[in-house]
Amino acid sequence: MTEQGPPSSALETDPDYRAAVVDLIAVLAYGELTAFERLAADAAMAPTIDDKAALAGMATAEYRHFLALRDRLAELDVDPQEAMGPFRRAYEEFHAQTRPSDWLEGLVKAYVGDGIGTDFYREIAVYVDDDTRALVDSVCDDMGQSAFIVDRVRSAIQDDPRVGGRLALWGRRLVGEALSQAQRVAAERDALSTLLVGGVDRPGTDLAEIGRMLARLTDNHARRMAALGLAA
Amino acid sequence: MTEQGPPSSALETDPDYRAAVVDLIAVLAYGELTAFERLAADAAMAPTIDDKAALAGMATAEYRHFLALRDRLAELDVDPQEAMGPFRRAYEEFHAQTRPSDWLEGLVKAYVGDGIGTDFYREIAVYVDDDTRALVDSVCDDMGQSAFIVDRVRSAIQDDPRVGGRLALWGRRLVGEALSQAQRVAAERDALSTLLVGGVDRPGTDLAEIGRMLARLTDNHARRMAALGLAA
Repeated sequence: MTEQGPPSSALETDPDYRAAVVDLIAVLAYGELTAFERLAADAAMAPTIDDKAALAGMATAEYRHFLALRDRLAELDVDPQEAMGPFRRAYEEFHAQTRPSDWLEGLVKAYVGDGIGTDFYREIAVYVDDDTRALVDSVCDDMGQSAFIVDRVRSAIQDDPRVGGRLALWGRRLVGEALSQAQRVAAERDALSTLLVGGVDRPGTDLAEIGRMLARLTDNHARRMAALGLAA
Repeated sequence: MTEQGPPSSALETDPDYRAAVVDLIAVLAYGELTAFERLAADAAMAPTIDDKAALAGMATAEYRHFLALRDRLAELDVDPQEAMGPFRRAYEEFHAQTRPSDWLEGLVKAYVGDGIGTDFYREIAVYVDDDTRALVDSVCDDMGQSAFIVDRVRSAIQDDPRVGGRLALWGRRLVGEALSQAQRVAAERDALSTLLVGGVDRPGTDLAEIGRMLARLTDNHARRMAALGLAA
């Protein structure tokens, strides 16, 4: 991946580019807010107080990311609530379709679902200006939760290998639902999709690069599943 | 209220006092962790993204308080999870008995329920050493959420006055449940209750002062209900 975004000044001079960046930050912001909610709900299923505290800590990290993104929307002179509104339904349907039925499903969702999401946003961030890219990269950083989740899921599978089969299916379902919501968002938000495929005055990436991007996303997903001890 | 706690050195020299302080910090810590969980769950019922973000922000403040209390338990060389364990049931029953059925009930619970809780802990903190009192006071500070809740509840009552009657009943139920769980904790945790009523070598407070304390708690509760526009 080479960085190939426009200069930050394009935010002032190119209204379409600006709309795309606002969409990108808004979709991420609402994602962080729902990630907060979901991790907090998972904390309620935690078997021990330490596990509960660990999940609550991850949730508050997502909330801090949300604040950074919301502040950036305000800096760009848009109303954060209005900017996030169009993405509410996609996230809510995703979460409604992938409600974890227990603690382990919640952990796998946090690891595998957030993983593919942040990978995707980082791929998109290649096509934006440096300031926007730095913000996206910072909120997509792994916050150290991975080691905790990997440990908990692997021990559960060790205790009862049948758990592995169930969670592998769950991981596949998560990715399927994430893809279908991503397609909906891409179809509804032209500005956002032109970041990747280009617009009238702006070259996008070519089909071969999109293919390579999908391959990277798939590889990373398989690596995460393997880290948990699950078949992708 | 005059401050009348023992010196901080009593934590080293008086094992009963130390046990009482550990209980006090642990009951508060678990309370903050469940407050986090509950506010995060209420955020899911928020009518707007801004309201959702506001509740999520309150939840993360509770989590920061939890961390401060947990760190203090570790400093006192106790295992935080073990110290909190005995209080898990009381909080969980309280929350199970007072699950808000909508957004407004959640707000009233956050304001009225947390209010009487923090008032009570601050009353107890009069009887502990300066370091412990400073910690208790800092985590019991109002974090500015009150104005937000008062605004939301009052406008809802203005829009539909019947809401006021329902929420007033709800406020009374919250206090009743909180009292019955507090009584359970007091009955089960001798060390904690001797902070107030005294132990073998340590004078407690007299009955008249306990009466005044209950009057203060009741007055403050009535004041909070009135601030929301509710009959106590």
